[in-house]
Amino acid sequence: MTEHSYAVIMAGGGGTRLWPVSRKETPKQLLPLIGQETLFQTTVARLENLFVSQNILVVTVEEQAQEMRQQVPSIPVDNYIIEPLPRGTASVVGLAAVLLSKRDPEAIMAVLPSDHFIRNRDLFHYLIRAAFEAAQNGYLVTLGITPTHPSTAYGYIQQGDPISEGYKYPVYDVRSFREKPDEETAQRFLRSGNYSWNSGMFIWRADVVLAEIQKQMPALWNALKVISLDWGTARQSDVFTEQWNSLNVVTIDYGVMENAAKVAVMPAGGLGWSDVGSWESLFEVLLPDMSGNITANNGRLLAHETNNTLVYGSDEERLIVTIGVDDTIIVDTRDVLLVCKSDQSQKVREVVEHLKKHRQEKYL
Amino acid sequence: MTEHSYAVIMAGGGGTRLWPVSRKETPKQLLPLIGQETLFQTTVARLENLFVSQNILVVTVEEQAQEMRQQVPSIPVDNYIIEPLPRGTASVVGLAAVLLSKRDPEAIMAVLPSDHFIRNRDLFHYLIRAAFEAAQNGYLVTLGITPTHPSTAYGYIQQGDPISEGYKYPVYDVRSFREKPDEETAQRFLRSGNYSWNSGMFIWRADVVLAEIQKQMPALWNALKVISLDWGTARQSDVFTEQWNSLNVVTIDYGVMENAAKVAVMPAGGLGWSDVGSWESLFEVLLPDMSGNITANNGRLLAHETNNTLVYGSDEERLIVTIGVDDTIIVDTRDVLLVCKSDQSQKVREVVEHLKKHRQEKYL
Repeated sequence: MTEHSYAVIMAGGGGTRLWPVSRKETPKQLLPLIGQETLFQTTVARLENLFVSQNILVVTVEEQAQEMRQQVPSIPVDNYIIEPLPRGTASVVGLAAVLLSKRDPEAIMAVLPSDHFIRNRDLFHYLIRAAFEAAQNGYLVTLGITPTHPSTAYGYIQQGDPISEGYKYPVYDVRSFREKPDEETAQRFLRSGNYSWNSGMFIWRADVVLAEIQKQMPALWNALKVISLDWGTARQSDVFTEQWNSLNVVTIDYGVMENAAKVAVMPAGGLGWSDVGSWESLFEVLLPDMSGNITANNGRLLAHETNNTLVYGSDEERLIVTIGVDDTIIVDTRDVLLVCKSDQSQKVREVVEHLKKHRQEKYL
Repeated sequence: MTEHSYAVIMAGGGGTRLWPVSRKETPKQLLPLIGQETLFQTTVARLENLFVSQNILVVTVEEQAQEMRQQVPSIPVDNYIIEPLPRGTASVVGLAAVLLSKRDPEAIMAVLPSDHFIRNRDLFHYLIRAAFEAAQNGYLVTLGITPTHPSTAYGYIQQGDPISEGYKYPVYDVRSFREKPDEETAQRFLRSGNYSWNSGMFIWRADVVLAEIQKQMPALWNALKVISLDWGTARQSDVFTEQWNSLNVVTIDYGVMENAAKVAVMPAGGLGWSDVGSWESLFEVLLPDMSGNITANNGRLLAHETNNTLVYGSDEERLIVTIGVDDTIIVDTRDVLLVCKSDQSQKVREVVEHLKKHRQEKYL
């Protein structure tokens, strides 16, 4: 890693799959879901020894920025970039790239979600260093996760031929990006051995990704040029807001990666990665007791003939007693109690939709 | 029914099987478990048109008396008799009988638990009237409940020959009282057709039951005579406490009924009776929705793919969401949350024992 190495943490999202703990005002990344730190704090801590704090940018929205600055005061205030409105990952990547290029024409950037979990920090560091080497050579590198089961919850990356340029970790050409598959297709992907999950972690040179944006997304490119020109002047805010709000919402995968020239994938196994995308995913992330039970946050659990059950509490004075309960997720918050069979935890989203439809704002 | 007809409601018990709603300070009978009224209020309301308020006695303990008087102000204050200590049902029955005899030598009394549920109030009235007729003729009448399943949770009463004295409901000699049986024995009792559950509801003349106490429990008899002598004088409290606290704890079944002379049973089917002895029993008592779910008390339930689940809430501002849940009991109180498989709800008692052992007073 060099002084030209940057990390861009993307933290704009809301996400309803960890409701009722994640809410409009307190999205997943700002919560202490795993241990005492929030996912955002853990994400930043994971970058130690890779990036100096001055080289870490955070792109987020106004509602979350204040809390983030409090949670991670080590990052300079100006490194928090506030989206006037969420405009998709292509816009965020483009904005970060154009601002970094302005500051440092040789910038290489890692784009990282703020709300993922990675158990094996040493391997993560090793992979990032290897990815920066490949990125230096002009590749748009994606970090792929070697699948452990035929998940239908992730996009997949099909790898092609190995790139033999002597990197310290195997790097492959990308043959294709695939949307979230159905069960049968996921099975096929898993068996073939040539597919990785798309983790949403990317490493590239700012100038390389900007060249792809110029080619593939000219409207975004034009907006970014205008924004960049007035950035740091009195007109920054007005121009940024006007240009930004006119952008289409497009993902970086769809907008750039699928048709880019030099796209590479580093398929990572053993990273202990989770996108913490559902309550059930906490079973992969936290260490259960010998009955398979997990107590998260402040839950006080008295378990009697209970197995493979997750209890997330919010009030350590409250006693949570389970009797004869198996494979269940219990989330106890101040105003909502959720009891959910573990393998149904993706349906939390349907409940949130229902509450939205019926304008139960106070629970959202 | 005549001016000599009395009801004695026994309300001293604590009971831990409906924990965490029933607590030391608020036992089951004082809670609105079913509808808006407490079980105690419902028990008194059930006696309307049978007994005038002046003829209803309540035997309870100091901790509960004040709340009971508030819940049922229609019963005269002096009709609440306070046990200095719980001393078993034989002592309570004897005390009530000796005090009623002093007031009315022709008293006939129904002894009734304060915390049972009876759906069919008209049939209950009919049975009580019939039982008073048999009691008038000197029988110790027990109200038996025709079993609907081989329960191991109740004592059983074996009936003998019918008593053909023209009562308006069949009455039988009692052949034996049986303790709570094991599963196999309960099956046999059910098949034979000659056994009823012992409901703990008794009807008899005060003088008849006192004669049995004199014969079978002379120590109790002597204490009752002393208590009765000073009742209504300045010495009442001292004498009562001294005598009472020296008594052995004995049930009326064991102390009197098993060896009494003229014992009769009226086996009642269709009464819709429940002793509300566990959370699971509420499924017999309350009307579920078409998915089999029940919301009791203030629970606000949003059920998604949920069946045969009971939610007891305490705070109507709290939303309780269930997803993919079956056959479960959820009891949400201020300081304890219980999630329990329905058929395990008798194990609530084990949890309470555990908390007692570990001195978790605030949860008891």
